[in-house]
Formats: sequence, C-alpha cells, structure tokens
Amino acid sequence: MLKFGLFGVGRIGRMRARILAANNRVELIGIHDVDTAAASSAAIETGSVSVDSIEALLGDSTLDAVCISSSTSTHCDLIEGAARTGKAVFCEKPIHLDTERADACGAVLAETGVPFQIGFNRRFDPNHSAVRQAARNGEIGRLEQAVISSRDPFPPPLRFLRGSGGIFRDMMVHDFDMARFLFDEEPVEVAAMGSVLFDARCEEFGDVDSAMVVLRMASGALCHVNCSRHCSFGYDQRIELFGEGGMLVSANPTRTSIERYTEAGTAARDRLHPFFIERYEEAFTREIDAFVDALERGVKPSPGFDDGRRALRVAEAAEESAGSGRTVRVGG
Amino acid sequence: MLKFGLFGVGRIGRMRARILAANNRVELIGIHDVDTAAASSAAIETGSVSVDSIEALLGDSTLDAVCISSSTSTHCDLIEGAARTGKAVFCEKPIHLDTERADACGAVLAETGVPFQIGFNRRFDPNHSAVRQAARNGEIGRLEQAVISSRDPFPPPLRFLRGSGGIFRDMMVHDFDMARFLFDEEPVEVAAMGSVLFDARCEEFGDVDSAMVVLRMASGALCHVNCSRHCSFGYDQRIELFGEGGMLVSANPTRTSIERYTEAGTAARDRLHPFFIERYEEAFTREIDAFVDALERGVKPSPGFDDGRRALRVAEAAEESAGSGRTVRVGG
Amino acid sequence: MLKFGLFGVGRIGRMRARILAANNRVELIGIHDVDTAAASSAAIETGSVSVDSIEALLGDSTLDAVCISSSTSTHCDLIEGAARTGKAVFCEKPIHLDTERADACGAVLAETGVPFQIGFNRRFDPNHSAVRQAARNGEIGRLEQAVISSRDPFPPPLRFLRGSGGIFRDMMVHDFDMARFLFDEEPVEVAAMGSVLFDARCEEFGDVDSAMVVLRMASGALCHVNCSRHCSFGYDQRIELFGEGGMLVSANPTRTSIERYTEAGTAARDRLHPFFIERYEEAFTREIDAFVDALERGVKPSPGFDDGRRALRVAEAAEESAGSGRTVRVGG
Amino acid sequence: MLKFGLFGVGRIGRMRARILAANNRVELIGIHDVDTAAASSAAIETGSVSVDSIEALLGDSTLDAVCISSSTSTHCDLIEGAARTGKAVFCEKPIHLDTERADACGAVLAETGVPFQIGFNRRFDPNHSAVRQAARNGEIGRLEQAVISSRDPFPPPLRFLRGSGGIFRDMMVHDFDMARFLFDEEPVEVAAMGSVLFDARCEEFGDVDSAMVVLRMASGALCHVNCSRHCSFGYDQRIELFGEGGMLVSANPTRTSIERYTEAGTAARDRLHPFFIERYEEAFTREIDAFVDALERGVKPSPGFDDGRRALRVAEAAEESAGSGRTVRVGG
Repeated sequence: MLKFGLFGVGRIGRMRARILAANNRVELIGIHDVDTAAASSAAIETGSVSVDSIEALLGDSTLDAVCISSSTSTHCDLIEGAARTGKAVFCEKPIHLDTERADACGAVLAETGVPFQIGFNRRFDPNHSAVRQAARNGEIGRLEQAVISSRDPFPPPLRFLRGSGGIFRDMMVHDFDMARFLFDEEPVEVAAMGSVLFDARCEEFGDVDSAMVVLRMASGALCHVNCSRHCSFGYDQRIELFGEGGMLVSANPTRTSIERYTEAGTAARDRLHPFFIERYEEAFTREIDAFVDALERGVKPSPGFDDGRRALRVAEAAEESAGSGRTVRVGG
Repeated sequence: MLKFGLFGVGRIGRMRARILAANNRVELIGIHDVDTAAASSAAIETGSVSVDSIEALLGDSTLDAVCISSSTSTHCDLIEGAARTGKAVFCEKPIHLDTERADACGAVLAETGVPFQIGFNRRFDPNHSAVRQAARNGEIGRLEQAVISSRDPFPPPLRFLRGSGGIFRDMMVHDFDMARFLFDEEPVEVAAMGSVLFDARCEEFGDVDSAMVVLRMASGALCHVNCSRHCSFGYDQRIELFGEGGMLVSANPTRTSIERYTEAGTAARDRLHPFFIERYEEAFTREIDAFVDALERGVKPSPGFDDGRRALRVAEAAEESAGSGRTVRVGG
Repeated sequence: MLKFGLFGVGRIGRMRARILAANNRVELIGIHDVDTAAASSAAIETGSVSVDSIEALLGDSTLDAVCISSSTSTHCDLIEGAARTGKAVFCEKPIHLDTERADACGAVLAETGVPFQIGFNRRFDPNHSAVRQAARNGEIGRLEQAVISSRDPFPPPLRFLRGSGGIFRDMMVHDFDMARFLFDEEPVEVAAMGSVLFDARCEEFGDVDSAMVVLRMASGALCHVNCSRHCSFGYDQRIELFGEGGMLVSANPTRTSIERYTEAGTAARDRLHPFFIERYEEAFTREIDAFVDALERGVKPSPGFDDGRRALRVAEAAEESAGSGRTVRVGG
Repeated sequence: MLKFGLFGVGRIGRMRARILAANNRVELIGIHDVDTAAASSAAIETGSVSVDSIEALLGDSTLDAVCISSSTSTHCDLIEGAARTGKAVFCEKPIHLDTERADACGAVLAETGVPFQIGFNRRFDPNHSAVRQAARNGEIGRLEQAVISSRDPFPPPLRFLRGSGGIFRDMMVHDFDMARFLFDEEPVEVAAMGSVLFDARCEEFGDVDSAMVVLRMASGALCHVNCSRHCSFGYDQRIELFGEGGMLVSANPTRTSIERYTEAGTAARDRLHPFFIERYEEAFTREIDAFVDALERGVKPSPGFDDGRRALRVAEAAEESAGSGRTVRVGG
C-alpha cells in the first residue's frame, strides 16, 4: 500500500479523495485544505484519514506520494516541497500560469528525480484512448487530420475566469495535449482565432469565450480544435481522427443508452454528462491507477512534467496567433 | 413503349399515374375512375392521357397492360376482364377478401396465362431488399430469427376500416409476405394475439388495433411481427434479421439526415416519413420498373398471384389463432 | 456497517464478493464455497474476510445478512437456514426449479419474516430502469406494446444446460420479470414457440436454443420476447416500449463510445459487452445497494419472493404453450 | 415550357441533360459538346433533342435559357454569348479562375440584365438546407460556430488537377459558399493551412491535398472547414452548426438505411454515396427547379454572380493565408 497525502479538496480534490480511498493499492493518510471544514468533511467521507497542515504532510516521512489538487497558484510550492522531501508527485494541470515559475519548478523535479505525473486526465478516458490505440494499431493508416471539439457546459465564475490564464491555457491546453497524444508527435505551427460571442465578462481581461485553432504537426498532419465556454446540451468532448484508410471517432458518451421516439424527433439519445466530474469519472480513476502502477513498477509516470510544459507552449503560441493574426511557430 | 391503362386514381392510384407517366418505357394511354373529376385531374397532371370507361380501356386492343389501383371489391372483375382481353395485369394487394372469389380469379389468370404481378411494394424497398440480399450473400449465415415492426401513423377512416378485412389481412399481410421474402421459405405455424387498446371502433366488427404474431418457418426459424394501427412518431417500418453470424437491420429512413442536439436530447434524428406514399416512394417506382422489365424480357413477373394467395393464407391462420388461442398450421 | 456472509464464489459469486467488499455500508465477514480454494482466493482478493463452513456462517449471530450465490440446488436449504437464524437474505434467481420446493421455502420466509430479495439484476440496470421511469413519468402515454430481445453470446456448458430447467425458466424468466417490471402489471396469457436451430445438445433433454413468446398483460397490452442461446456480436439485451405517445428504447450499451468509418461501413459502433458480468456490472452494484438500503431503512426489499414466483409461473406457462401449441393462461 | 440549350455533356453535363429532360417545365432543345459523339449519345438518351454547334444554339432565338456545364475555360465566352442574345444562364461554378476575366463577364451580365444562376448545388441539398432552415427558425439561437467537413473520395486526374486552380478555389469554394449561406453573412478573415500528405503530384504546381481553414464571420462567429482530396469511406460531406441553444448537424446520408451487427462492430451503417453525382442527386434536381421557378416568376435567381464572386474572394484569401502564414482579410 502506497501512503498518500492530498492537497486540496475543492470539486476536483474531493473526487481525488474518493478515488484514492477506493484504490486498494493506496492508503490515503492525510488531507490538507485551506478550508479546514472542507478537509474534515472529506476526511469523514473517505474513512479515517486525518486532517493535517501542509507542514505536517510534507514532513511525514512515511508518505510515498502526494496528490496536489489545490489552486493553481499553490502548485509549484507544493511540488517543490514534496520533491525535496522525496515524495512522488501527482499534480493537476497547469503547473503554473507563469512559464518561468513553472520551469524553475521543473528544475527542482529534475534535480530531485522524484516521479512526477501531470493531470491530463483525458489521456485516460477509455473512449479517447481506444481511438488512439486503434490508430496505433494501424486501423486507418497514416494519420492526416484530426478534429477535436471541446465545449464546457457553462462559463466558470468570474473569480476563476479572471485567474484562469485565458481560454487557450485553461481549456485548450487539454486539447493541445490530446493532439500530441493522438499523433505521437509535436505541433510545430498554430493559427488561432477567438471571439467574445456570449460572455462579455471575458473582455475585461482580454479573454474570449469561443475559439478555433488549426495546428500543423511535425509530419504535416493538420489538427483542428474548436472550443466554447458554453454548450446547452452538456459537456461536448469529441475526437475525429482521419487517416488514409478511414476515420475513428471518439463520440460523446451519454448518461444512459436509452433513446426516445416522439413527435419531436427520432431516436433522440439521452443527454450528455453534465461536466468533467461525471464525463471523465473512469478517466480520473484510471489516471491515478496509472500513477500508482508507475510507482510500484519503478518506471517514469506519464504524462510528465515535459508534457505539461509542451502543451503550455502550444497554448502560448495559440494565444499569440489569436492576438497577432499570424501563424505562430511553437516554442521548444 | 408499353401502353398502359390505369384503373383507380385514389391516393395510391394517383401515385401510380405519376410513376407510369414518368417511366420512359411506358406510355400511359387511359385512366378510369368512378369519380370522373378525379380521373380528369389525374389525366391533366400526367400529360395527354385520356379519361375512359372501363369498357373502353378493356376493349382497347392496343393496350399491353393495365394497372389496377381501384377499390378491392373491383379487383377480380378487372383482372378477369384484362386477362380475357390478353392484357398483362399489375394489381394492388389484396386480390379479394373472399378466398374463393380470389381463387376463381386465379383460375382465370392461369387459364389465360397473362403476366400478373401483385402489389407487394415493400419487396422493392431499397433498404428491405438490401437486407435480404445481404442475407442471401451469406453475411450472417443461417437465418434464425426475424423481428418485423409495422405501424401505421393513424387508423384509417371508419368506412375503410369496416371493409379492410381486419388487421391481419389488411396490414399484416404485407409483413407475412415480407417474412416469406426474407426467409425464402414458407411459414408453417402461426400464433397470434390481438388487442383493442386505443380505437374502440374496431370492436364493432371484431377487429383489433394492435397485434403480435410469431411464425414458425419451414426450417424452424422463428419470425415475430408486431403491428399497430397508430404510431405517434410516424410510419414505423423495420426489419431485424438475426442469423448465426450476426444481425442485419433495415432501419427506418428519416426525412433528412439532420440531427438535433438540444437540452431535450442528443443527436435526435429527423422525423420518419409520414406514411407509405413518402416512405415507399422509391419502392413503388422500382416495383413498376420490375413489372415492365418482366414484360419486356418475357419472364413471369414476381411477386405473382401465388405470393398473394400464400400471404393471405398466413393472415387467415393468424386471425384464426388470435380468435381460438391455438397455434394454427398455415393452409396450403 | 451491515455484516454479510456470502455463499458461493463461482463466476457470479466472486463478483458479489467484490461488490460487497467495495460497499462502504457492508462488512463482508465470511465466505463459503464447496471449493475451498476458490473461497480462499476470493477471501484474499477482497481483503480480510474468513473462509467458513455453512454451519459457521449460519451460526454466526453477528451476521445481519447473507448473499446466496451458490448453485441453484442449494438455494432453498440456505434460505431456510438463514431465515431461521434471523438473517436477511439476498438470493440469486431462481429459488428452485421445482415449484413445490420453492413454495415450501417461501412459507419459511413468510413465517420468519426475514427480509428477502431475489436477484433480478436487470431491474437495476441504469438503462432499463431509465426507460421504465420515463414511461412511468408519462412520456409516452399508455403503454401498448413492448419488444424485449435477450440473447446470450454462447450456450452454457452441457452440465449447466442439463440442469438449467430449460430456456424459458433459465433465460426468459429474466425477461418475464422485466415485462412485469416495465408494465407494472401481470401477464395473463402466453403464446410461445421454440426451435432447436444450432445446438443439438438441447434435444437430449427437450430444450430449445431459440424461442419467441407473446404475452398479453392484464390491461391487454402485448409484449414480445425473443431469445437465443447464442449471438455472434455479443450479449444482446434490448427493450422497446411503445405507447400511444411514442417509443422508448433501452439500446445496447457498447464497450466504448468509439465509432469506425472504413470501406466496410459507416459509423460502426464498438462491440457490445461480452456477457452479463460486464454488461450488468453497474446493475449488480445497484442491486446490492438497494438491498442494503431496504435493510437500513427497515422496508421490504424489492423484488421479493413473490416476484420470483410470479416470473416462474410465466416461464412455466410459456413452456407449456411451446409444447402444446396453445395459448396458456398464467397460473396465480 | 421553357426551351433550354445545354453546353457540355461530360460527367456533370450528362446529369444536367437527364435532369432537364425529366423536368416537366423544361424542353431541352439542343446539346453542344466538343466531343460530338458524347453530344449524340446524350441526345439519344434524353429523347429527341438535336446536336448543335455553339453558334446554332446561341443563335436560336427561341431558346429561353442555357445551361453551361462545359469546361471552366469556356464559361465566360458562353455566358457572354448567351447574355448578348438575351438568354437566361445557368452556369456551373467557377465562372473563371482568373478574377479579372470573371469580373468582365459579370459586367456583361449586369449590362444585359439576363437572369443568372451559379451552380452551388450544395445549397439545394435537402439536408444542408434543412439545417440552415432550422437555424433560421431560431432552433439554436444565435449561431456561434460551424464545422464543415468536405472530403472527396479520391483525387482527380492530373489533367484536371493541374487546371483546377488549387484546393481552395476548386474544392473549398463550395464550403466557403456554404459558410456564407449558413450564417447569412460574410466571412471577414481567413486563416488557412495546407499540406501535401498523400498526393505528391500536387507539389508540381504548388497545390496541397489536405487543408484546414478558420473563417471569422462579420458577427464574430467562427467557422472551420476541413478538406481532403481523398477519403476511403466515401464522399464525406458534413455540417455542424453550433449555437447558444444547441447544435444542428447535417450528417452524411448513407446509400440505404441498413445496419450490420457482426463480430467486427455494432450497428455499422451502410456506405456513404461514392461521389457528388449520387450524393447530391436531389440537390442537382432542386437546383434546376429553383432556376426554372425564378425564370417563371420573373425574380432574380439565387445564388447569383455575386455569390460566385464572393466565395472566390474567400478562396483567394485562404490561398494567400496558407502561403503567407498570416490571417488574411477577405477582399470586397
């Protein structure tokens, strides 16, 4: 049993607590949250884990690993603290909105050599990963195009929006990682456009609520990403992978398999999942499993720090392209 | 060009007029209907054809063929009149509701040897026939089960209902012919149940508005037919063919290929076609084409008189089973 | 925490062990199986539970409940043993193949008054139950017809087949319970046909490998069930519910949401689940949850002994109908 | 009856001949093709029309209209010849690959005032136009994003490829017109990327075989187009229209409505149509009908010369963007 500490039990952290508690190779030892009531409630929900200070958790030499699900601004300090006390680290994306700060953190990880995994949960979705696996098996030959659709059901609260880093870093970074994951190669050029179409709050801090991007991958393959901060019919998350021999689609799963035939239409499928907690439930579970696997087998976890950094570089290039009206080369 | 006369321009006859007029191997010479205004209107719509009496049409020795789309009670007299004057006959189903009268008519057809085709239009539907062809190509191995769903959008007017011969002869006879067509063998046993669930008018003349049947085919394969005289979401016409190696489905085509994603549901397909005229438009065209083909090539048209008779025998057995609560053997 | 004992860790029992172990309102105390190695292995897999004799488990007065997943022939003795020692009982279907023996067992349950739930897992499937709930919400008005498709991927081993009680009691009893569940009323008449189409072993003991049934419900509504002991494309489990205002379908869920577009076809969905363990995984979990809920809240679990008995009566009537060629009234 | 002359009976012209001949408001009077054998064969196929020289057709004062389906380089001369002799003109897209030549032709059309319709057939597709109509009906509120997929089954012969004007003018011009049609507004900015991924012949004349574009519409709405010169699973032509209240999809129609369930997959739909002749059969018929309607009613046909010109401007901007790596404003 690997002993874990958990930082942060907001919406995503609470889910991590449940997943860690249910994993029979993990013992969740302690929880920290700046909101101690939230920490206590999570502790009660998941059994007998204690509520600890940051210092107590980092100082606990029996801990094998930490899961960092606290707010983005705390990530680097916690990663470094855990790395310096020899703990393996699982951290939600992004490392940090400031690239320099993130790189400094990466240097500490490199120096200490602790295992590190970044929370790109979508890689572990059974549907997305089945599409990628089918492509790797050669089912559709050489990959030529991808279309990734990525729409949240509704915009976040203003507080979050303001600190999100913008739609390219906050939302699309997941899709840029997915492009790298699907094609197994790097994007080299980005052309992007964004618009404020329904959420005027975005304008205050130069953000957009809708965006479209085209990536050129190293091989010349082309990848489109469309993104919206709202979607009336649920959490819309789809992938189309087009190759010389066919197309593979990771379609939206629905809440159930039921269909309705009424005067309004034929074979209407059930609603999509409301948001990421429900949509990626299995992905979140598999993601932690993969981290535990890597720790047990002594191999480097994946995706790692460099994956987070590279996806962020694509996001920065997209943001620059949207602003400048130029196709931008992705930084190294 | 084959010269045709047409009897009857009610809903189905008017469609036959259009199809005959558009067929570039056919010349539609004359139309008869007891409603002379309807006949005139159809004549105008389809170009220069004349409006003639029954006698004039049957007496026209230049006619190669007649299409009989008038009311059921007139079928036998017209078939016999056409046969005795050497004309090929296409006739809507059923020949007659009275089996003896139908058989007498069949005897005239046999004696005169004129080509005859019965209007089992569904055999010519591109979807149903593709399913059958795929099965004949061995795609799913030996056929074991079929499920045929057959629902009209709304019940007919009382006048029609009263003379329809009941749900088994009127509606299900099409499905029984389809079972024979799909399996390429005869049903040998029938178990049936009917209910009056929404249309109390049926009770007046011992009919039902909903029915379910199980057929045992000669090989032992089983075939289910479900039937309703109403269907809120359109004209529901489906076939499932289950074999040792898979399943083939003739799904309901929709009016267009558009799909709607709303808060009410996901990927709702467009509405089904409203009723048979629209749903089987292409089937009706192919059906006349097949008749013309057979005449041109000098081969026996199919489906023929015997197909109509056999499907009717199954309908009679189903009606008897529904009444007696016994599985009934199909008559020869 | 409710303390449970478990009898039987074959394929289904082992799954029950895992579900009980993962349920945070349950403590799995002891396991019995005639195969002690299997019992030990299950005990190890699920943590610290002990391996006990039947006597030890039944004699343990701290146990609140037992889960009986052993072979059918042992059900009645174990139910009675548990009931007489005051334990709540969850038991896989069927109670017993012999109706008299089952009724005697029911008498003991009635006399002791212990809570009892029968393992009709499909009632707890999120898809099937969503269809039923939508119908109860009045989405399609009065229910008129249902079509239930129920096909196993492959026939069972001869040993199991011989003792299964036949296709109507073994397989279709689930569908008969589903009909009762969907319509919220009793079937009153049954017409059935069976055939041996691919598995000649059935003939040895008068069984069939394929069957079709029509049920008339008390309201006059009609329900068709089709059933096969093999299915090349997976575990085929579907429900269509047709009402005056539309149709609700519980379609087959697939392993993932991916679709393939190739020269062979368009939008081919992923394979179905291989068999019941995978297909009904969530149903099995919810089923135990419902039992625990009922125990905690002190209400009668559902479905209960009478549901098992009534579904079996329908199976007996179907078997009689298939043999006699008569529509059979369902016994009380 | 409107009297028509037809120029060109290559693949598309021959289809126009059939459509004109079957239209009961049109009389097809004469056909011209540089290949006189092809002209004769088309004349025979469509009945009694004569084979005429360009001069004879243009000089025939009884002609009401001409349909120009000959090669692109002949379009302007024929349009001008017809316009100057007072004939209405239907012409396949594009007017000309050289913008100045096209504009000169447009000046003649303006000066003579003859009715003119450009062959953007996709506007008349029942599926695409149903999506647009649903959007105009307000079904999904304000339009925010569109995704247009447009893939030919295989690349054209070298001869055609060389003179095609490149993927943006040849293929995507249809999609750019579709964007204008769907949004009912003009694109103002274009970002484009192209790649040679499978057809090295393109490199010879600076073309690409795969391209992706993002358009910003005047309202700020975003529209993505993806395009490939090959597609193994057929002619892939889809539209997704995303608005504040939902999404509308014009999905690929299939050849039939049949579905296959096999070990390879579940519910595989039939193949797509092979190419435009089959896929847009109904669109081509409706397109000519709309032209005839406009002539009969004395209104301006749509889409007209300006629609052709504007779509071409978008194509030019896309080509420039792909070459320069800059987002390009669409010319007026």
